[in-house]
Amino acid sequence: MAKLTGKALVAQGGGPTAVINQSVVGVVLEARRFPIITHVYGARHGVRGVLEESFLDLSEATAQNLEDVAVTPASGLGSTRDKPDIEYCQKMFKVMQAHDIRYFFYCGGNDSSDTCRIVNEQAKTTGYDLCCIHVPKTIDNDLVGTDHCPGFGSAAKFVAQAFAGANLDNRALPGVYIAVVMGRHAGFLTAAAALGRKFEDDGPHLIYLPERAFDPDKFVADVQKVYDQLGRCVIAVSEGVSDKSGAPIITTLKGVEKDSHGNVQLSGTGALGDLLADRIKAKTKIKRVRADTLGYLQRSFLGCISTSDAEEARAVGQRAVQFAAIHGQAGSVAIKRVANYAVNYELIPLESVAAKTRHMDESFINPEGNNVTQAFLDYCHPLAGELPVQDRFQAPRVAKILSK
Amino acid sequence: MAKLTGKALVAQGGGPTAVINQSVVGVVLEARRFPIITHVYGARHGVRGVLEESFLDLSEATAQNLEDVAVTPASGLGSTRDKPDIEYCQKMFKVMQAHDIRYFFYCGGNDSSDTCRIVNEQAKTTGYDLCCIHVPKTIDNDLVGTDHCPGFGSAAKFVAQAFAGANLDNRALPGVYIAVVMGRHAGFLTAAAALGRKFEDDGPHLIYLPERAFDPDKFVADVQKVYDQLGRCVIAVSEGVSDKSGAPIITTLKGVEKDSHGNVQLSGTGALGDLLADRIKAKTKIKRVRADTLGYLQRSFLGCISTSDAEEARAVGQRAVQFAAIHGQAGSVAIKRVANYAVNYELIPLESVAAKTRHMDESFINPEGNNVTQAFLDYCHPLAGELPVQDRFQAPRVAKILSK
Repeated sequence: MAKLTGKALVAQGGGPTAVINQSVVGVVLEARRFPIITHVYGARHGVRGVLEESFLDLSEATAQNLEDVAVTPASGLGSTRDKPDIEYCQKMFKVMQAHDIRYFFYCGGNDSSDTCRIVNEQAKTTGYDLCCIHVPKTIDNDLVGTDHCPGFGSAAKFVAQAFAGANLDNRALPGVYIAVVMGRHAGFLTAAAALGRKFEDDGPHLIYLPERAFDPDKFVADVQKVYDQLGRCVIAVSEGVSDKSGAPIITTLKGVEKDSHGNVQLSGTGALGDLLADRIKAKTKIKRVRADTLGYLQRSFLGCISTSDAEEARAVGQRAVQFAAIHGQAGSVAIKRVANYAVNYELIPLESVAAKTRHMDESFINPEGNNVTQAFLDYCHPLAGELPVQDRFQAPRVAKILSK
Repeated sequence: MAKLTGKALVAQGGGPTAVINQSVVGVVLEARRFPIITHVYGARHGVRGVLEESFLDLSEATAQNLEDVAVTPASGLGSTRDKPDIEYCQKMFKVMQAHDIRYFFYCGGNDSSDTCRIVNEQAKTTGYDLCCIHVPKTIDNDLVGTDHCPGFGSAAKFVAQAFAGANLDNRALPGVYIAVVMGRHAGFLTAAAALGRKFEDDGPHLIYLPERAFDPDKFVADVQKVYDQLGRCVIAVSEGVSDKSGAPIITTLKGVEKDSHGNVQLSGTGALGDLLADRIKAKTKIKRVRADTLGYLQRSFLGCISTSDAEEARAVGQRAVQFAAIHGQAGSVAIKRVANYAVNYELIPLESVAAKTRHMDESFINPEGNNVTQAFLDYCHPLAGELPVQDRFQAPRVAKILSK
């Protein structure tokens, strides 16, 4: 495709991440370098904002404002759960035509890449020159074709720090502690709970992922075994854990809400954690059983950002513009890992990403299906970055006098 | 009391905080300065470790190890929920005698100050020279006689950053978001949710505290009002909210667990948040309603520490030793606020703190009982410290072409 002269439009779709604004700011600042890009618009609330012609002219944002938004979690332009069909994409496309938009950068997960793909095809069919680039983001890390996804590293850091703290708390006041982590189909974020372990007996001692069938009886037996050994047990459970038939464990509860796509509501409720805690209370003699659900903090907590994640989120936005404005290429920006640890960026076909889901590699899960392997830790560590210091008192025990 | 020669014992009781180890390390390093203090022992799991003679000799911990533990959340020596009666205190006292312990530093809340008081009295009755000092800590900020409590500032910072992020997330994907915050009787920590507000329409838009009777109908009306105005609503609710009769709202649920003191389990369950979300779904037409329960992360998340809180937690440990070893005084260390913002430390009588609960000042709560005042923000801000930068895109709207 020839290099196009016209406006660029950037938008954000799906669940926010802690660094999704880095990508938008990367697009905006990079686009402002190219004279052929006459304006950079931002659509409010993703594709919905395109339909409604609700645009901000980000050519007129100051560099300081952009840098301050870049470090702010959650989609600064607003997001949407709209999943455009072909008719929806046609309407978007008409708005783009009217505004002489020649570059469309859509920051989102696999649904968003599919939207890019459809809009791109519509433009081709109509003979309108438009370059569509998918800028990847997701805390779930479930996009195919990329080593990892911007947004995942910071969420992994949050989950790791949450479990490191919960493990210390559980060591101070022993019992069973369960925390439910986001992840409907992919277990990467739940697996990241293991990054905070330092000493051999640190939790999480058990990790349950959507990639393995969840057996409630095996679960109770696993917990009892750890508890017998350590007098305590910390457990990470993915919200998407399902039984052998693929039915989410949470659906054994009555009156569970479903969304417009027929998906069961997994986030924004403490139901799964409470269900699992109740099961342990009912099936064992362990008295102190507590469950937390990490909830929305995982993707939007202010002030827990992985340095490499922030840098890469910025870079995918910059590279998206470079691929489009220098090479006239459409596609999805992918991260390639180089050595240990650096990255390169490539453009891969939209069709190769669109509406596909990546799962945890087999080598990342232990044979028993209740923990992660060193291979996963090696993969994940550079994405989350260094965690804050933690230590235990290292001092000799005092000999007993009265009760020897 | 004359200056005593002998060993010092330090222990931690009750729920951990993010900076409770600062206080223990403050005690240990300060005690090692005084030749009259021959050893500094740490009791494992609070008063229980005293009974069981389970001590570490912290005279033999390295400075680096102590500094690394100091920045680690949750009680490094282990904690306990044991609430000693007089017989229990007598047993503790015998162990202390056997080990020639002459200084007892107990880091905890109001129950721990009561333990100090009883042990101190036992020693006097027996004619054994022992100096007992209560080192304050609690995320609830509910100790009387002190401007604020070590541990609260860091928890307040966590809650503020959680709500700042949740507000941004809710702005990106609008709906109703409820998060339940710890605090059985005192609303300070829930109120801290307001610290993260920057723009006028930022959430939390509603804050419900245990100090005001919670009316479920008024709650729904409040939420509807905010939602009608902003198209979204972020709500902070204290786990301890109760109705007019003083009955916790959560008890309207069946099968709620009670602990050995007959207290209803409020933490470690998502029940209250889910109950309130269900009520909004049932009584309004709002579709997207989500509830989180911040849970144990509030007191133990690794890497969210208020600088002033960490400094003061260290200082109360140091001052405890100074009051004891220089002045031979027993008591509870209290923080006095000086100007805006500095602090002094005083020793107040154990009886003045023991087993008492402080509540939010009247001037901290708005007349309607569903928000906090500027007076509270002025009080709380220096305790939590500066929050990370957050901003919105500041750019002009683009004129519509198709849909004008």
